[in-house]
Amino acid sequence: MRKDGGVTQLHDLSSRGFASDNYSGVHPEILDAIVSANGAHQIAYGEDVYTARLQQVFAEHFGAGVEAFPVFNGTGANVIGLQSMLPRWGAVICASTAHINTDEAGAPEKVAGIKLLTVDTPDGKLTPALIDQQAWGWGDEHRAQPLVVSITQTTELGTAYTVEEVRAIADHAHANGMKLHMDGARLSNAAASLGLPFRAFTRDAGVDVLSFGGTKNGMMYGECVVVLNPEASAGLIYLRKLNMQLASKMRFISAQLIALLGGDLWLRNAGHANAMAKRLRTALEAGIADRSVTGVTFTQATQANAIFAVLPPGVADRLRGSFRFYDWDPATNEVRWMCGYDTEEADIDAFVVALIRELAV
Amino acid sequence: MRKDGGVTQLHDLSSRGFASDNYSGVHPEILDAIVSANGAHQIAYGEDVYTARLQQVFAEHFGAGVEAFPVFNGTGANVIGLQSMLPRWGAVICASTAHINTDEAGAPEKVAGIKLLTVDTPDGKLTPALIDQQAWGWGDEHRAQPLVVSITQTTELGTAYTVEEVRAIADHAHANGMKLHMDGARLSNAAASLGLPFRAFTRDAGVDVLSFGGTKNGMMYGECVVVLNPEASAGLIYLRKLNMQLASKMRFISAQLIALLGGDLWLRNAGHANAMAKRLRTALEAGIADRSVTGVTFTQATQANAIFAVLPPGVADRLRGSFRFYDWDPATNEVRWMCGYDTEEADIDAFVVALIRELAV
Amino acid sequence: MRKDGGVTQLHDLSSRGFASDNYSGVHPEILDAIVSANGAHQIAYGEDVYTARLQQVFAEHFGAGVEAFPVFNGTGANVIGLQSMLPRWGAVICASTAHINTDEAGAPEKVAGIKLLTVDTPDGKLTPALIDQQAWGWGDEHRAQPLVVSITQTTELGTAYTVEEVRAIADHAHANGMKLHMDGARLSNAAASLGLPFRAFTRDAGVDVLSFGGTKNGMMYGECVVVLNPEASAGLIYLRKLNMQLASKMRFISAQLIALLGGDLWLRNAGHANAMAKRLRTALEAGIADRSVTGVTFTQATQANAIFAVLPPGVADRLRGSFRFYDWDPATNEVRWMCGYDTEEADIDAFVVALIRELAV
Amino acid sequence: MRKDGGVTQLHDLSSRGFASDNYSGVHPEILDAIVSANGAHQIAYGEDVYTARLQQVFAEHFGAGVEAFPVFNGTGANVIGLQSMLPRWGAVICASTAHINTDEAGAPEKVAGIKLLTVDTPDGKLTPALIDQQAWGWGDEHRAQPLVVSITQTTELGTAYTVEEVRAIADHAHANGMKLHMDGARLSNAAASLGLPFRAFTRDAGVDVLSFGGTKNGMMYGECVVVLNPEASAGLIYLRKLNMQLASKMRFISAQLIALLGGDLWLRNAGHANAMAKRLRTALEAGIADRSVTGVTFTQATQANAIFAVLPPGVADRLRGSFRFYDWDPATNEVRWMCGYDTEEADIDAFVVALIRELAV
Repeated sequence: MRKDGGVTQLHDLSSRGFASDNYSGVHPEILDAIVSANGAHQIAYGEDVYTARLQQVFAEHFGAGVEAFPVFNGTGANVIGLQSMLPRWGAVICASTAHINTDEAGAPEKVAGIKLLTVDTPDGKLTPALIDQQAWGWGDEHRAQPLVVSITQTTELGTAYTVEEVRAIADHAHANGMKLHMDGARLSNAAASLGLPFRAFTRDAGVDVLSFGGTKNGMMYGECVVVLNPEASAGLIYLRKLNMQLASKMRFISAQLIALLGGDLWLRNAGHANAMAKRLRTALEAGIADRSVTGVTFTQATQANAIFAVLPPGVADRLRGSFRFYDWDPATNEVRWMCGYDTEEADIDAFVVALIRELAV
Repeated sequence: MRKDGGVTQLHDLSSRGFASDNYSGVHPEILDAIVSANGAHQIAYGEDVYTARLQQVFAEHFGAGVEAFPVFNGTGANVIGLQSMLPRWGAVICASTAHINTDEAGAPEKVAGIKLLTVDTPDGKLTPALIDQQAWGWGDEHRAQPLVVSITQTTELGTAYTVEEVRAIADHAHANGMKLHMDGARLSNAAASLGLPFRAFTRDAGVDVLSFGGTKNGMMYGECVVVLNPEASAGLIYLRKLNMQLASKMRFISAQLIALLGGDLWLRNAGHANAMAKRLRTALEAGIADRSVTGVTFTQATQANAIFAVLPPGVADRLRGSFRFYDWDPATNEVRWMCGYDTEEADIDAFVVALIRELAV
Repeated sequence: MRKDGGVTQLHDLSSRGFASDNYSGVHPEILDAIVSANGAHQIAYGEDVYTARLQQVFAEHFGAGVEAFPVFNGTGANVIGLQSMLPRWGAVICASTAHINTDEAGAPEKVAGIKLLTVDTPDGKLTPALIDQQAWGWGDEHRAQPLVVSITQTTELGTAYTVEEVRAIADHAHANGMKLHMDGARLSNAAASLGLPFRAFTRDAGVDVLSFGGTKNGMMYGECVVVLNPEASAGLIYLRKLNMQLASKMRFISAQLIALLGGDLWLRNAGHANAMAKRLRTALEAGIADRSVTGVTFTQATQANAIFAVLPPGVADRLRGSFRFYDWDPATNEVRWMCGYDTEEADIDAFVVALIRELAV
Repeated sequence: MRKDGGVTQLHDLSSRGFASDNYSGVHPEILDAIVSANGAHQIAYGEDVYTARLQQVFAEHFGAGVEAFPVFNGTGANVIGLQSMLPRWGAVICASTAHINTDEAGAPEKVAGIKLLTVDTPDGKLTPALIDQQAWGWGDEHRAQPLVVSITQTTELGTAYTVEEVRAIADHAHANGMKLHMDGARLSNAAASLGLPFRAFTRDAGVDVLSFGGTKNGMMYGECVVVLNPEASAGLIYLRKLNMQLASKMRFISAQLIALLGGDLWLRNAGHANAMAKRLRTALEAGIADRSVTGVTFTQATQANAIFAVLPPGVADRLRGSFRFYDWDPATNEVRWMCGYDTEEADIDAFVVALIRELAV
């Protein structure tokens, strides 16, 4: 007699908000890919046909010679990618707002012993001049050696580096004996924003190792360390395993990534998320212009799928009754609204109505 | 214009072997659960309704007061579970064949700084007497302090601890100020083998912290650290995150675990895998008895889903042309045959035929 | 036939400068203590009579119930003291100028996995308000948990915390569930500056764990982790050993510390160093007043044995021909002049003459 | 008014035993060297003239091109030397009795994340065949990669490798892509035992990196990482600092090492210690022969300054009333008697008398 586990749908299917692009579920095409990869046996730990095919998919995007290492999540991708670029005495220069500095519970320090040399920025973006605040002391044994620069594309503040900005950083890093790492948890949003292929603002602009993000763009789980410059990275197969990021049934991560990158799903999803953020910002700016929206200011450019705004006191808390989103800086009433591949136009429109209502209270 | 990624089925759907229970795919009921959990928004990082429900499911199996922390994989479950039980100066006593010692690339040492104090065993099972080979030196600052005993159920050699054996180890460990950790990557196989509920040979027998395995028993990915004795563990929410084992879309791990454990899928799958191993062993023993099978000896009892055998020279390599399996000890021609939830009777029968054929060459 | 190693004095006995208080040698009374402790056998690793006596000496200074753990150096004292106060997920709030952040090659991160949450300060001193820039996020698993505040007394900028300032920090830290660590590499200079016993501005002001410095105040080598609040620290005997800071012939560190602290050598040495810094500053301020010294400004108060000054371009480099000292901020021509227990009045006077000469070039 | 710390001699100057060669004090010639190096200023952290001269001294012993990095203690020397030879995924093959495995509180694992792959040996000595028990699995990401072999000379069991034995190990290691590390805490005893210069059984025999021991041979503190093959090691200046082994007043370690190695003090001290062990063993063997000593057996050859013996039950405890020594294996009544540079003939003779007396009880 079979007893069914009875996994019924426990959650409210109408709920959507602006908290994070990982509150969303899985895109149907991704689910289809998982189903296709199911059944029978495949060699575990990455020797399956899907992971083999994935190498070709990444080569189509980034050019021949790149190496792709699927992992479970973004923290894992960042921490093992950085380890592969650094000796034990190395340190990483990054923005003080970088995810590796603020949102990974100290994983770089705790798991990998990597000291982060942080720099304050106005918009989440490093520049050669900002990097120079921390880029010194090579050869001085008292200082953790700055050997990698890490930038996030798009940044944690919703801004995007241009090709020229990435290239200037890469050139500056390389000229000083440092390598360039890119945290691309939202790389697809950057590509959609810039209207460029991935390669243009990564490999061709001088990025050495990339964390390619899938989860925020419609996957169930899975990111990928992509080595764009094999001379800048060593030991990734060992590092992935010893850092507990080696999936036994890797075919299911690889199949998801193939579904995302093999066609244009990555662009459809990211482009849509960006468009939803733009719709929101445009609506609010129009409201500000015609004074239907008052007391709202924006703190960052909206170059991808996030909007950062300052609200009058109390508004955020009332608004949260209907829509989830993050406080970004409670001291200044700054909030973050994040759109995803599954945000609908109606969500935006309803949110604008609700915001205007709460502003009027 | 939509360009489809075109994830077609790249793999051979008829291929099955005896290499590992993680060569298999995902059980259909697990896939159904994933689909049910999809859509709309759920709070990321474990504050979703599925993860909440999962706590109840574990409480039904293990009793009130247990805490379940879903993670990505077994290495992660072991390494963070052990960290939660140990101060920085702690060491772990385990069998030299333990997965944490042989198959995790040094993750306990490298990520968590945990020294493993290993003991040779005949069958993968520790005993109080064997533990005592390493259980000494408390208070001696020159020795990494033995503060946890870790056992694997079922063991890496396919054997199962009885309730009495676990209890004897737990009592011995506790009497010496040590805690008991259980690596339960194949805990369901143990339960099926013993014919007992999980609780009988874990919490009620004195286990403090458990790694509960799902991937080898039909899940796509996901394991769970289960704290059976909250006084024996601290900081797991932080350790999971900083060790890069915190899934953003955790609902999909939790839904899988609910599907596995909410009904009897765990038992159907594990019981079937065990039965297939028994079918294979029984067939071969019959063959040995009637001399149709010659030159094959067994090195371990078959108490779950694995069989360990020594073959005449050359047989393994020829047999591998048709069926994948692992060499266990090349020096002695010992091999491991592993059955899974998806092994079919016909697979066993065909394998026996093939083995007899190769033995006769 | 004996061949003598022939260690003749290789160095120039007249050379003294203002680079660092660890360029100095060993005070004769310290050497005498080493000689007294020599000969015959003593149990290694701290079970000797000198280390036993040292516990009494520390109790005389800090009160009953403190525990003293001699170690090799200051980095070691800081890194093991902090580890003893923190779980694996803990972080430390400190000034961005703190020695643990800037001068230990990332040892806290690399050896102990401790994330430092840094705060910019005008004078090297934290305050409750400054601490609050980083004191948040408890319970949020994405943030390394701020569980210790670390302050330096005297600071790396030559300033000293008053009793009230330390107490305000301690109260604030404790009220928020954090412990207070003090890096006392120059604690004797602080005591001399404040005119107070150690206890007044450490244990009685709420400091939990202290790094007590000896090397900069006349010892050959050796510092001491002093646990002022045993409830705030665990496992130091193990941490000292596993962090490679356990001296086999510990009697020689302990004898030095007894010589320093058993009488008033600590105060004579530190008071002298402070007085020499004051002599230098006073002379220069007098010169500024009468215009014999031009173009020199001071960037910090001189509350101990260090002076921080800005010089006109080129002066520092010319002056260094005669006297060693550190550039502090090359961008602003800020330099550091450090006095030691062995600085002589004639050194100061000669330095003032030389500086005036170079200023006039 | 000066208050003297009053470090009087607190310890019994007649006490000597056989517990450890680090129970001893400092050799007078070493103390003289410290005094000679005292006074005036020297650049801290190794840029002093004594550390410069030390490089020449090591070159005289080991040949041109070696690099010497003074550190505080032997655990430090081993742990940083090994780190300099290994990527993050590397493991070390060593005897299960190796000091790095048994007496360093897990420092290699905890500080450096190095997994030790241990091998049981009869006499503390590895051989190519024994190494092969662990030398496998290169390229398999599930296994910590065996990339260094570490041997101890003389071993923890008082035995010495011959030149041929070291060379066989080195050749075997190198042929398999592994490097050879030597823990030379008692290297001088080995040289005295073999009657060879250091170079013959280290660099010329294929050792890549060496921990050179001073403390057990008459120094106060200080050991040295000696890089014999610069291609086998990287980053030592950074590793020494970040592992908290960089002495500020390094001149005093270097002066001691110069005193030890600049002439023949190393050989006089070690040769004497070896001779004392031989005197003890010879006396006891004579007693066994003439039946004045009964019930004593030896478990290891005496090739340096240690003797391992099994005593009748109860004898060790009674004997310890007069002379300290270590239990080696309480289960078998095995004890260790260690002689040092300061052991006197009268100590040996008195000990033999006492042992015969206790055996007769």
